[in-house]
Amino acid sequence: MIDLRSDTVTRPDAAMRQAMMDADVGDDVYGEDPTINALEARVASLLGHEAGIFCPSGSMTNMLGVAALVAPGWELIAESQAHVLRAEAGGHAALAGVTSRTWVSPDGTFTAADALALMSRPRGYHQVGTAAIAVENTHNFGGGRIADIDELRTLRRETAAAGVAVHMDGARLLNACAATGISAEEYGRQADTVSLCLSKGLGAPVGSVLVGSADVIEKTRLLRKRYGGAMRQAGILAAAGLYALDNHVAGLADDNAHARQLADALAAAREGIVDPATVETNIVFLDVSHLPVDAEQFAAQAAERSVRVSVMGENSVRLVTHRDVSPEQIDTAAEVLTSLV
Amino acid sequence: MIDLRSDTVTRPDAAMRQAMMDADVGDDVYGEDPTINALEARVASLLGHEAGIFCPSGSMTNMLGVAALVAPGWELIAESQAHVLRAEAGGHAALAGVTSRTWVSPDGTFTAADALALMSRPRGYHQVGTAAIAVENTHNFGGGRIADIDELRTLRRETAAAGVAVHMDGARLLNACAATGISAEEYGRQADTVSLCLSKGLGAPVGSVLVGSADVIEKTRLLRKRYGGAMRQAGILAAAGLYALDNHVAGLADDNAHARQLADALAAAREGIVDPATVETNIVFLDVSHLPVDAEQFAAQAAERSVRVSVMGENSVRLVTHRDVSPEQIDTAAEVLTSLV
Amino acid sequence: MIDLRSDTVTRPDAAMRQAMMDADVGDDVYGEDPTINALEARVASLLGHEAGIFCPSGSMTNMLGVAALVAPGWELIAESQAHVLRAEAGGHAALAGVTSRTWVSPDGTFTAADALALMSRPRGYHQVGTAAIAVENTHNFGGGRIADIDELRTLRRETAAAGVAVHMDGARLLNACAATGISAEEYGRQADTVSLCLSKGLGAPVGSVLVGSADVIEKTRLLRKRYGGAMRQAGILAAAGLYALDNHVAGLADDNAHARQLADALAAAREGIVDPATVETNIVFLDVSHLPVDAEQFAAQAAERSVRVSVMGENSVRLVTHRDVSPEQIDTAAEVLTSLV
Amino acid sequence: MIDLRSDTVTRPDAAMRQAMMDADVGDDVYGEDPTINALEARVASLLGHEAGIFCPSGSMTNMLGVAALVAPGWELIAESQAHVLRAEAGGHAALAGVTSRTWVSPDGTFTAADALALMSRPRGYHQVGTAAIAVENTHNFGGGRIADIDELRTLRRETAAAGVAVHMDGARLLNACAATGISAEEYGRQADTVSLCLSKGLGAPVGSVLVGSADVIEKTRLLRKRYGGAMRQAGILAAAGLYALDNHVAGLADDNAHARQLADALAAAREGIVDPATVETNIVFLDVSHLPVDAEQFAAQAAERSVRVSVMGENSVRLVTHRDVSPEQIDTAAEVLTSLV
Repeated sequence: MIDLRSDTVTRPDAAMRQAMMDADVGDDVYGEDPTINALEARVASLLGHEAGIFCPSGSMTNMLGVAALVAPGWELIAESQAHVLRAEAGGHAALAGVTSRTWVSPDGTFTAADALALMSRPRGYHQVGTAAIAVENTHNFGGGRIADIDELRTLRRETAAAGVAVHMDGARLLNACAATGISAEEYGRQADTVSLCLSKGLGAPVGSVLVGSADVIEKTRLLRKRYGGAMRQAGILAAAGLYALDNHVAGLADDNAHARQLADALAAAREGIVDPATVETNIVFLDVSHLPVDAEQFAAQAAERSVRVSVMGENSVRLVTHRDVSPEQIDTAAEVLTSLV
Repeated sequence: MIDLRSDTVTRPDAAMRQAMMDADVGDDVYGEDPTINALEARVASLLGHEAGIFCPSGSMTNMLGVAALVAPGWELIAESQAHVLRAEAGGHAALAGVTSRTWVSPDGTFTAADALALMSRPRGYHQVGTAAIAVENTHNFGGGRIADIDELRTLRRETAAAGVAVHMDGARLLNACAATGISAEEYGRQADTVSLCLSKGLGAPVGSVLVGSADVIEKTRLLRKRYGGAMRQAGILAAAGLYALDNHVAGLADDNAHARQLADALAAAREGIVDPATVETNIVFLDVSHLPVDAEQFAAQAAERSVRVSVMGENSVRLVTHRDVSPEQIDTAAEVLTSLV
Repeated sequence: MIDLRSDTVTRPDAAMRQAMMDADVGDDVYGEDPTINALEARVASLLGHEAGIFCPSGSMTNMLGVAALVAPGWELIAESQAHVLRAEAGGHAALAGVTSRTWVSPDGTFTAADALALMSRPRGYHQVGTAAIAVENTHNFGGGRIADIDELRTLRRETAAAGVAVHMDGARLLNACAATGISAEEYGRQADTVSLCLSKGLGAPVGSVLVGSADVIEKTRLLRKRYGGAMRQAGILAAAGLYALDNHVAGLADDNAHARQLADALAAAREGIVDPATVETNIVFLDVSHLPVDAEQFAAQAAERSVRVSVMGENSVRLVTHRDVSPEQIDTAAEVLTSLV
Repeated sequence: MIDLRSDTVTRPDAAMRQAMMDADVGDDVYGEDPTINALEARVASLLGHEAGIFCPSGSMTNMLGVAALVAPGWELIAESQAHVLRAEAGGHAALAGVTSRTWVSPDGTFTAADALALMSRPRGYHQVGTAAIAVENTHNFGGGRIADIDELRTLRRETAAAGVAVHMDGARLLNACAATGISAEEYGRQADTVSLCLSKGLGAPVGSVLVGSADVIEKTRLLRKRYGGAMRQAGILAAAGLYALDNHVAGLADDNAHARQLADALAAAREGIVDPATVETNIVFLDVSHLPVDAEQFAAQAAERSVRVSVMGENSVRLVTHRDVSPEQIDTAAEVLTSLV
C-alpha cells in the first residue's frame, strides 16, 4: 500500500525507536522529564519564542494556544477552511467558548487584508471584540499553501497596533521553510503563539509543541492538565521529536517535490483536476468534479490499486506526501492516479 | 433629542401601558400566564410555526433557537456581520459551545450560494459538520437589507436535503414584510426557528418570541430556565407585545420610508456617504470615511444638534428610524445631518 | 384555589400596576432607564453594597454573581440542597464552567465549619482551588431556614483571610430579616455578592437584583448581555420592585407567621410530618413518608380540595405562604391539609 | 532519592522499553494501530466490558467517561475528595458542563447510602436530575481506601433502577484487586464506565484506558478528538501498557504491603499520625497537625534526608509506594520518616 491519505501515517524507523528507547525520562506533570524539557526549549528556540509546551496532538496545541489568547466570548478570526475550525471537532467553541468568524480564500492563499477587514474592536456590550487571528502555515485544506512572509509581517504589525494577538497553526511550518528558505524563526516571530507538529512530515509517532512567551506557556500548563493532556514519562515521545528535528527536516524538501511531481503528472493527464502552480508543499488537492466518479468512488478505485487517498468533500480528494513514501512509490502512485483520471 | 441610535429606544405610550395594566397574568414558569400563552401562540401562527416561547431579549431567542438546533461542537454558518456573531457577546460559543464560520457579504445582501458553499457534512472525527445556517432578515449590520425570498427558498430546499437546519434572526422581520408585501408566514416557513423582537420597531418595552416546531420549543423551555430567562408574571410585558401586533405593525412602513428619506437627503448632500438604493427598511449606514471627521466625532457633532446616532466602526455611523421619531423630526434630522456632511 | 406551591405565584395588585403604568422608562441596555437605575441603587443601599444590577430572574442574578466571583474550572462550595445547584438547571456548570462540591446539612441549618471544611486552596496543577462559597438565606429546600448571623460572620472572616469570596443567595432574605429583626444590610455585608428576588414574597411580577462592589457589578453587565438578560424599557418591571420595597416588606412577617400556623396545625394532627421549631420563615416542608400516600398523591388530594402544594421528592411536600394567601385562606388550608394527614 | 510523592513517577525499565521498541504501530486516529487496538480490547475484557479507548491521561479517561454519561447541565454525584472533582482542574464543569454535588466521607470509605441520599430525579425545569454517580476505587485522597464490593453492588442495583449511571475512577483498581482478591471484572461490572491507569502502579510511562459498552466508547472517540487526546502511532505507549499488564500486576501486592509497613512504623513512632487499619492499598496519608511542623516543613525535612513526599493540605502529607521503591528503600524511608515524627 502507498498511503497518501496524510503525513500523519508515518511510522518511526529503527533509529528513531532507538532514540526513544534510550530516552531519559521523568514525571512531566512535576516538570521533571529532561527529554521533554529539552524538546520544549529546542522548539521554542527554533521558532524564536521563549518557551514551549509538549502536547499529545496538534489539536491540543492549537486549542491551548488559542485559549491562552482568547477569553470565553471573545473572537478568533480565521480562514474559512482553517484546521482550527474545520478539523478539531469544534473544540475551540465547545471547550474554550471561543466565538469565530472567517474570511473566505478560495485558493488557500493568505492576504492580511482579508483578515484585517474582519477584525473588530469591542464596543461595550454592543459588539464582540476580536482577540486573535489564526493563520495556518502551511494551509492544509487550502492545499498546503504557504502564507506569504510579507503578508504575515503586515498582519503582525497591524494586529499589534490594534492589541489583537496572532496564533499560527504551524503544524507543517517546516514544509514551508523547506519550500521558501525562510527560517522557522522568521515565520515564528510573526505570531504570539505557534504550534508545530512532530507527527506529520517530521515522522515522530506522537506530539506537537506550542511555543510563545513564558507567561502564555505557563498559563497553558494548567489548561493542558484540564484538557487531560498532561502526560507522565512522555520523554519517550519527546525523544522521537528531538530525533526528527535532527534527522528528518532535510527530507521535507523531497516530500514537497514529490507532491509537485504528482500534481504535474495529474494535470498533464487531465485538465482542471489540479493546478500544479498551487502545489507549494506536500499536499495536493484534486477536483474530481469533471470525472465520471465522485471522490468516494475515486478513492475506492485508487485503493484497489494500492494507493490510498483521502476524501475531503463530494468532489475533493487529497494526496499528502511524506517520508514513508519512497520516490519509486511516488512514480507508481502517479501512474495509478493518472490512469484513473 | 431625536434618537436615531436604535429602534430599541421606543417607549410604550399610554394605550400600550393601559394594555399592560389590564393584563391577566400568572406564573409563566408553571406555564400559567394566559397573556404569555396567547402571545406565544399568536406569534407562532403569524410566522407559520407550531409553537412559540417568550424571552426577555432577542439575544436570548437567538441563542435558544440556535442552541436547540446545534449541539456543542457542531457548526453554525452565518454572514460575517450577523448579529448572532457580532452583537450577542459571544454567547453562542461561550454558553452553548457552537462553533461558527462566516461568509462575507460586503453589501448585506443574502445569496443562498454563499451560505451553501460553506456548508459541510461531518466526516467522522476529521471534519466538523454544519448543523444550521443563520439568516438575518432584515440584516442589521448589513444596513437593514432584506433577504430575498427566492434565495431563502433555495436555502431552505438545499439545507433540508442535506439535513441542515435554518435559523432566521427575524428581529425586524416585519420591517421586511412592510417593504416587500410578503407575509411573515411566507418568510417564517423558510426556517426551522425564527426569532421576532417586540421591543424594536414594534415599540413594546421588552421581549422577543422564538417560534418553531412544538418539539424544538419544548426543548428551549429548559434552556430558557438554565439561561435565567424564565420569568414569572411577565404577561405584563406580553400584553404590550400583543398590543403592538394589533396596533403598531402598520407604522413600520413609515419607518422604512423615513429611513429612505434620510438616505436620499444625505446622498444628495454628499456623494459616497450612502447609496439610497441599499436602504430597504428602517436602517441607514453612513460611511464617513471621506469626511474630515471620524464616526465618533460625527456622532458628537450630531448630538450637539440634538440628533443621536450610533457609532458602528471607525468610519461607520448608523441611523435607525422608529415610531418615536415623527415625520417632523425626520425632516429636522435630515437637515441637521446634511449640514454635517 | 389556595396556591401554596410557591411565593412566586403572587400577582401584582391594582396599586402596583398603577406604579408600573406610571413608570418613567428608557433603554436600559444604554443605561438610560431611570426607574431601573433607581431600583438598582436602592437595593444596593438596602444590602450595604456599592452597586446593583436588575435581571429577569433569580436564577440569572445567582449565575451572574457566581460567575463574577468564580472563573471557569474554579470551585464553588455550597450546601447539597442549595438552589444554585439543585434548581437552576445546571447553569453554573453548563454555562459558566463552575465546578462545585457540597456539604450536607440534613436540617437546612448553616454552620460555617461545614463550609470551611471543604474549602481548598489551589495547588498548582494538582488541586482545584475554591473561589467562592454560596450561602442561601433563607434556605429554600432546607425548609426556609435562616443562616445564623454569627455563623455568617465567621464564614466571612475565615473566607476573607483565605482569599475566598462569598455569594449569598438572598432570594428570600427579607423573610429572614422579618423573622430575626436583623437588617438586610447586616446580612448583606457578610457576602461579596447578594441576590434579592422581587417576584417572591415581595409580590412584584418579575425580577431580581444582584448587588456587589461597583467593579463586580460592572463585570456582570457584559455577562447579562451574553446570557440574554439585558432588557430595554424594563423600568416597567422595576417600578413594581420599588413599589414592593415601599409597601410589601411589612407583610413578610405575616407570611412567616402563616407558615408556622400551618406547621403547628399539621404537627398537632400527625406526629413526624413536620417539626414546627424548624419553620423559621414562610416555607414548610412536609415528610409524608409515614402516610399511606406518596407526595404526588398527597398533592393531588389537596388540589381536589382547592389547596395546591409542591411535590419536592417522593415523600416530600412543600408549602409556601405569601401575600396572595389571606389569613382566612390559611385557616382553610390548615383544615384541608390536617384532614389529609 | 526515595520518591514517595506518587506512583506516577515510575520509569519504564529496560524490558518495558524493549516492548515499546518492538511495538507494531499505525495511525490510531484512523483506528489502525494494532497495539492500541489490542490494549483497548484487553483492558475491556479485564474489566468485563465491551470496548475500550486509550487516552494520554487518567484525567482524560475520567472526563470522557463522565461526559459520555452526563449531558451538559445534568448532575454527577461524587465523594467530596474525589479525584474527578479535586484534581482534574475543574475540567468536568469547565469543559463538559457537568454540575456536581458531593457527599462527605471523612475516612474515605464508601457507602452506597451516602451516594443514593443525594441522587435526585429531574423535575421539569424545577430540579436538576442526577445522571451519574462516580466512585473512586481505590480512593486516592481518601487514603487509598477500597470501595466495598457489596456497597458497589447495592449502588449498581439502586442506580440502575433509577436510570442513573455509574462511573468508576479505577485509576488504581488493580491495587484494590491485589488487596481483596476480588477480580477486576467483578469490580468493573459495577459501573457503566471504568477508567484504569497504566502509568501509576503498573509502571507504564503514559496512558489510561476507559472501558464501557461499545456505544458509549464509540461516543467518546469524537470527544477524545475534541479534547485533543487523539494520538497517532501511540502503540509505542500501548505496548508498555500491555507489558505492564503481563508483568507488573503481581508487584502491586508488594506496594500495598510496603504502604502498610510505613504506616505501622509511623503509628508506632507517633500516636495519631496515621491509623494503619485505614491503609488498605499503596497510599498513606499522614496527619501532621500534632507535630511542631506543618506539611510543607515536614516535606522539606524529609527531602533533606532523601525522601520525597507530597503535601496535600496544611497538615496533610501523602506517601505512595510503587515498583520503583525497593524493600530496602522502604526500610530507609520508614527510618527517616519516623525520625521526623
